[in-house]
Amino acid sequence: MPRKDKKVITSVLPGFMELLPADQLLFNHLKDTIRTAYEKHGFIPLDTPAIERAEVLLAKAGGETEKQIYNFTKGDNDLALRFDLTVPLARYVSEHANELNFPFRRYHIAKVYRGERPQKGRFREFYQCDIDIIGRDSLSLINDAEILSVIYSVFSDLDLPKFQIRISNRKLVLGLLQELKLDKQAIEIMRLIDKADKISEADLKKTLIDLNIAPEPIIKIMAFINIKGDTKQVIQALQKLNINNEVYQAGLMELVEVIKNVKFLGVPDSVYSLDLSIARGLDYYTGTVYETVLVDYKEVGSICSGGRYDSLAENYSDQKFPGVGISIGLTRLFSQLRTLGIIKPEVSSPTRVVIVPFDKSAAPLALEIGSKLRQKGVATEIYLEEAKFKNKLSYVNKLGVKYAVIIGEEEIIGKFFILKDMISGDQARLSEKELLKNLFE
Amino acid sequence: MPRKDKKVITSVLPGFMELLPADQLLFNHLKDTIRTAYEKHGFIPLDTPAIERAEVLLAKAGGETEKQIYNFTKGDNDLALRFDLTVPLARYVSEHANELNFPFRRYHIAKVYRGERPQKGRFREFYQCDIDIIGRDSLSLINDAEILSVIYSVFSDLDLPKFQIRISNRKLVLGLLQELKLDKQAIEIMRLIDKADKISEADLKKTLIDLNIAPEPIIKIMAFINIKGDTKQVIQALQKLNINNEVYQAGLMELVEVIKNVKFLGVPDSVYSLDLSIARGLDYYTGTVYETVLVDYKEVGSICSGGRYDSLAENYSDQKFPGVGISIGLTRLFSQLRTLGIIKPEVSSPTRVVIVPFDKSAAPLALEIGSKLRQKGVATEIYLEEAKFKNKLSYVNKLGVKYAVIIGEEEIIGKFFILKDMISGDQARLSEKELLKNLFE
Repeated sequence: MPRKDKKVITSVLPGFMELLPADQLLFNHLKDTIRTAYEKHGFIPLDTPAIERAEVLLAKAGGETEKQIYNFTKGDNDLALRFDLTVPLARYVSEHANELNFPFRRYHIAKVYRGERPQKGRFREFYQCDIDIIGRDSLSLINDAEILSVIYSVFSDLDLPKFQIRISNRKLVLGLLQELKLDKQAIEIMRLIDKADKISEADLKKTLIDLNIAPEPIIKIMAFINIKGDTKQVIQALQKLNINNEVYQAGLMELVEVIKNVKFLGVPDSVYSLDLSIARGLDYYTGTVYETVLVDYKEVGSICSGGRYDSLAENYSDQKFPGVGISIGLTRLFSQLRTLGIIKPEVSSPTRVVIVPFDKSAAPLALEIGSKLRQKGVATEIYLEEAKFKNKLSYVNKLGVKYAVIIGEEEIIGKFFILKDMISGDQARLSEKELLKNLFE
Repeated sequence: MPRKDKKVITSVLPGFMELLPADQLLFNHLKDTIRTAYEKHGFIPLDTPAIERAEVLLAKAGGETEKQIYNFTKGDNDLALRFDLTVPLARYVSEHANELNFPFRRYHIAKVYRGERPQKGRFREFYQCDIDIIGRDSLSLINDAEILSVIYSVFSDLDLPKFQIRISNRKLVLGLLQELKLDKQAIEIMRLIDKADKISEADLKKTLIDLNIAPEPIIKIMAFINIKGDTKQVIQALQKLNINNEVYQAGLMELVEVIKNVKFLGVPDSVYSLDLSIARGLDYYTGTVYETVLVDYKEVGSICSGGRYDSLAENYSDQKFPGVGISIGLTRLFSQLRTLGIIKPEVSSPTRVVIVPFDKSAAPLALEIGSKLRQKGVATEIYLEEAKFKNKLSYVNKLGVKYAVIIGEEEIIGKFFILKDMISGDQARLSEKELLKNLFE
């Protein structure tokens, strides 16, 4: 193809994340840590196409999400890129229900697409890291406790600063609103309750007044949101509200049951709290709801959200698939942690050693020893270009690889190798046997 | 959302692969094996957006590929889904050249999209597993040998049936055609040469005659393609052809150099051969070219192809980035191996153990021991549903998990656990300490 005078724009599209190698390694380290934590809890991988029939996505999407969908046609098909991993899961479970074992526990770590207006910390393509446990007809409430223990495990393994898992049960707020005869405005009110920790109490009250809610119910809603304390205190306060409808009582019972089982799972009391301002107004949750925040960086918002739903696949199937799950928006989380300086690209390369022949004559020995190390499973790069020796070592340094194996003229003759620790600067001349032993460990 | 009477179609789109859990585990096992093999050879991960500016993709695509591109607009942007991982690499290297260390060795395992007519073994969304080594201005020829050793390592690690790596150098055929004054028809003729092992010699000759090529050159082309034998014999035959133009001689020199270094890398002679019918007519290769076939399943075609190119990013940059790389089309390979029965979904779950409480009363102990195992890194599922005991064990069996830990009434009292090997059927009653020791190893 002939060169064109005008070159094509090569910058990444706005709203898309593209990383340099050191940051990519850090990102992948987080992604692998999440995967390992999910597998440790007995979840198995699922992969579905990024492209779905448009009607499948539109059956579930609504409002803002619907506007954000990337859709297009190819041949006779109206297609769209998935905007989350839950809708594809619902379709998958409906389609393959008779071939799956229930409870079906899957993790799915993949990219999703939302064509929203690019803004700080928002991405049009981003990784979601999801787990869900799906039952057929029924699903034990103990799973809700287990999901909380997975959140605890994931963020412990990620080694993030102090985090707190906040849980509630949506039936509580629904029961309260039913008691207050406000069920018809439930979605609007829940959306406001979700914002309770972001706006002042006065503003919240004012907005409730704007919704034409009478003073008495407003006092009760505010009292409900403001219940604070340790788990025991919150439960007692909830009991004292004396709301006796079925929904509220079911929510209370569920919350108590979940907390009880969380303790059996060894989750420390200090990492979670009951927080009644979590309502997740826009979501399809029907029971337990979770959010997780970094205690000293609340501005980051929830880094892991989820909950229990009665019916995963109502748009696609007549069967009932109750489930509980969470999602971590990894791209956004990575971007925020990186901006705040909480994580740094100091994760070393998966490559353990670079073989550095002093000059061309050492290349055959470099290839031989490199090949032997690889056969033993040691991740090895062989530096093959002609360059000044200083530049070769500087290359190893920049890559963040821990060891260099240097082969000079003397080493060729004696079949020796200089093993250099690039961090400490220590080096030693070793025989092949000693070298393999040292690097294989 | 109210239920609709007419349910949405939930079957996967034609031309897209979606797997059940056992097959998904097998697929991921292959993908992870390839990733590990790539990392073992000192390649580091890269991830780029699946969506690119349409002009970036169209600058490189041509012919069939261009028609297959999924493109769409969002706001003011003409967008498209990538159809391979090489074009995004070219864009990435052009954009970030000053921030990268060269040689830049990256692996990229990700989905690409081609809206071609669905047919057996062809997919519209498929995984490519690519490695490339990119130099700035120059790149040692020894890298071409190294890439061959990676192919050898990957397919050995994948444990596939007997495979053979075929290599050639595109300069040889270009030099031959130059000698025969057929340079202007080079692409057409190379495309035919590529088909040499699929059609009869008579048909190949006939097609060459149809291209208005004189009898004498046809004899020479056929003689060239038919050079067979071990590496030494082929090299000798190539020398005997007495073609003295620069291109041909450079190709011969490069081939000899690559073979020499392949030996230093410990690649057995038996796994590769020189095959002059490999021309990769439609690609942008300029030197070494590779294909890999399964010796006893030639119908599968090349399972790994690649080569050397002089200039990766000519559409995006004025700088020269020579490179060498390969690509494995994993989705297609998986589908074919699976259809042929070469691979089977017998890979066991990453989950090592399922805790099975006999009834509800054993749940607390199940949660406790499950949590302890997870803390030790043992992938553990806890079965929490109410079901007949027989059905619980059958569930573990279907999942392909090796161990069940059964907790009955007696075990609760004595704090004992029954460890059952689901494959052999052996079981033993163990204390907590013994159990942890057994499963942690």
